Amino acid sequence: MKEYFREIEGGVCAPKGFSAASHAAGIKYQGRDDMALIFSDTPCITAGTFTSNNVKAAPVIWDLRIVHSEKKVRAVVANSGIANAATGKPGMEICEKTAAALSECYGGDKDEVLVASTGVIGMQIDTDRITAGCRALYEKRAAGTEAATAAARAIMTTDTKKKEISVELSLSDGKTVRIGAMTKGSGMIHPNMCTMLGFVTTDAAIDKALLQKALTAIVDESFNMISVDGDTSTNDTYVVLSNGEAGNRLIDTEDEDYERFFEALRYVSLSLARRMAADGEGASCLFECKVSGARSLGDARMLAKSVIGSSLCKAAIFGNDSNFGRFLCALGYSGVSFDPEQVDIWYESAAGKLKIVEGGLGTDYDEAEATKLLDQPEVTVLVDMHMGNESATAWGCDLSYDYVKINADYRS
Amino acid sequence: MKEYFREIEGGVCAPKGFSAASHAAGIKYQGRDDMALIFSDTPCITAGTFTSNNVKAAPVIWDLRIVHSEKKVRAVVANSGIANAATGKPGMEICEKTAAALSECYGGDKDEVLVASTGVIGMQIDTDRITAGCRALYEKRAAGTEAATAAARAIMTTDTKKKEISVELSLSDGKTVRIGAMTKGSGMIHPNMCTMLGFVTTDAAIDKALLQKALTAIVDESFNMISVDGDTSTNDTYVVLSNGEAGNRLIDTEDEDYERFFEALRYVSLSLARRMAADGEGASCLFECKVSGARSLGDARMLAKSVIGSSLCKAAIFGNDSNFGRFLCALGYSGVSFDPEQVDIWYESAAGKLKIVEGGLGTDYDEAEATKLLDQPEVTVLVDMHMGNESATAWGCDLSYDYVKINADYRS
Repeated sequence: MKEYFREIEGGVCAPKGFSAASHAAGIKYQGRDDMALIFSDTPCITAGTFTSNNVKAAPVIWDLRIVHSEKKVRAVVANSGIANAATGKPGMEICEKTAAALSECYGGDKDEVLVASTGVIGMQIDTDRITAGCRALYEKRAAGTEAATAAARAIMTTDTKKKEISVELSLSDGKTVRIGAMTKGSGMIHPNMCTMLGFVTTDAAIDKALLQKALTAIVDESFNMISVDGDTSTNDTYVVLSNGEAGNRLIDTEDEDYERFFEALRYVSLSLARRMAADGEGASCLFECKVSGARSLGDARMLAKSVIGSSLCKAAIFGNDSNFGRFLCALGYSGVSFDPEQVDIWYESAAGKLKIVEGGLGTDYDEAEATKLLDQPEVTVLVDMHMGNESATAWGCDLSYDYVKINADYRS
Repeated sequence: MKEYFREIEGGVCAPKGFSAASHAAGIKYQGRDDMALIFSDTPCITAGTFTSNNVKAAPVIWDLRIVHSEKKVRAVVANSGIANAATGKPGMEICEKTAAALSECYGGDKDEVLVASTGVIGMQIDTDRITAGCRALYEKRAAGTEAATAAARAIMTTDTKKKEISVELSLSDGKTVRIGAMTKGSGMIHPNMCTMLGFVTTDAAIDKALLQKALTAIVDESFNMISVDGDTSTNDTYVVLSNGEAGNRLIDTEDEDYERFFEALRYVSLSLARRMAADGEGASCLFECKVSGARSLGDARMLAKSVIGSSLCKAAIFGNDSNFGRFLCALGYSGVSFDPEQVDIWYESAAGKLKIVEGGLGTDYDEAEATKLLDQPEVTVLVDMHMGNESATAWGCDLSYDYVKINADYRS
């Protein structure tokens, strides 16, 4: 973390003018909140990145149209349980009715409301339940940490931990701005972009094009560098809402203040991406791969992603089995060309650091020590390619029995 | 199967002039045969396809040099237990000593011997054990079904079933030629080419360039269309040895006899590829995806492979869970662009056929019937893209608890 920002409480409600709510609408789950609202008192500019899947969920199509226009946004309504993907025209109508139900509450326009869904693909959402849910959310909306946290919980599906964060940032003129964010995502997680819903609020006044530029670069380095299972979802959404209520001088060039805002948004996004990987379906361990010495940034990213995406590497991490040949193998099929006889590999975790491969060959390391290092909740595989100066980090998780259990019968 | 060929007994020993042997050399496994020999009385021309992994095992480097030259080959020596990959110069020396030990038995040259290994990556093979193994194999070699089957068993690692096949083929002049083959492969299975050792023998006289052309086309359609876990091995090898002892007129143009030989080799390869997928690590089910109506053959292959490679589709098949949205999702992230609202999907198995998606939307199918169809040892997902006339088939298996179990502690 840089000296000009710090973590604070408040989640998506931390920035000025934002409130949140959650509600049990019975979309699919029973006995728990399954809808969430983020609301801004004043209109927001937006930036967003969405799934690259050719099969895009209806809410993604709805949001793309709004985010990639000059329209201002007041709210995001999300539901968990049903993805509203592969739902055709009825699915698009649900988006429209959801946005209309919420905007009618404050006398606004439906195009001011973003919609997001996550859950089972191919099922239709009940119109009455979701529109009634919108009205309830609007009534229940409140500022403060408690409402933000309830919203972060309401969007969870197979997640075991809620994921929210907020930071406060000093600009060069002494003004303070805030960024809050919440995400969900645990399975069907793979770039680009990864399976997830993520919502960022900020009261910073910033130009829309610059905000989109920052977001795109940051997503490439954070959410697009995690994988749980190699499956790119139909619903991936990461949007920023900026209402400018902090009253700072508008950030409209890539100056010192842009850098500060960028670093804070980067910190928020990396932190949440890492937490999503650690909370991958069935995960018992955060599995990180740091590649250095690559010829290009693209090479470094491909190499790191290949390692954390390998079923065999993931299974070895689950078993605390130092089967280092699998790391070499995954580097080898990444699509990057390199000299295998230059590669060095280390394990690093809270239990220490150990060199296991030198010049492409296994070192004479102690198996018991390797097992001790691997038997930790966070394990890093460090790789030096000795081909150049570029580096990248990717995050995944181990492959456990529970991943199979969760996904062999997800719908019931 | 075409009318001009039929399956026969004999495996790799079915063609004239070939013998085989197996031996317990104690390379890594104890109490079982772990070395295999295929031997030809006369010199063979060869064709081969090898792993595309940038980290190539020493035996792959050894064989590539020989197969892609005009050298004639007399034998293949394979061991299971240690892959001889990521083993540097000592690993190459093991290949040389192995080939030399075998060729000295019959007074030949080491460059007449192909070497193949499969097993743990990064460990060195004991020289004395493998060279003693070569001498024992040469002494024990015999023609006939029994020796062929013993060799097919000796190369297995996590395979639960031996995989061998042989066919007899009539050429247009009434001459009979034979093809025999054996493969192993169960984990670290993914194109291109897939993780496996495969050896084909034939007594057909055929031009080397034509043999390689046929093999490359057939591998693209068979072994490169299967996946167990998305991990492309360091050791993949599929070679054909042809000694021409059938005495047929040399096949040196793409005439009727070339077509017949091609179809028979295609049948042999598709049959073994399918069996490898069905015997994938932890598999309880062969999971086939047939895509039709694609715009190009490349598109059809990418779409089919994306479905059978998806962890979430594989887990759904394991759970007999008709979560059809996952199939649409996997088609969507295949990299092929298409109109989701044109896609139709069916399940097909021994229990019947059922349309589950029409025009991109779930049909009103009966869940109990879907579960019954999915609860079969072989399940096909049929997809019609309605974008063109090309089709392709890919084979995988379900993702089970046993896959995790096998791979969390493979080395012990």
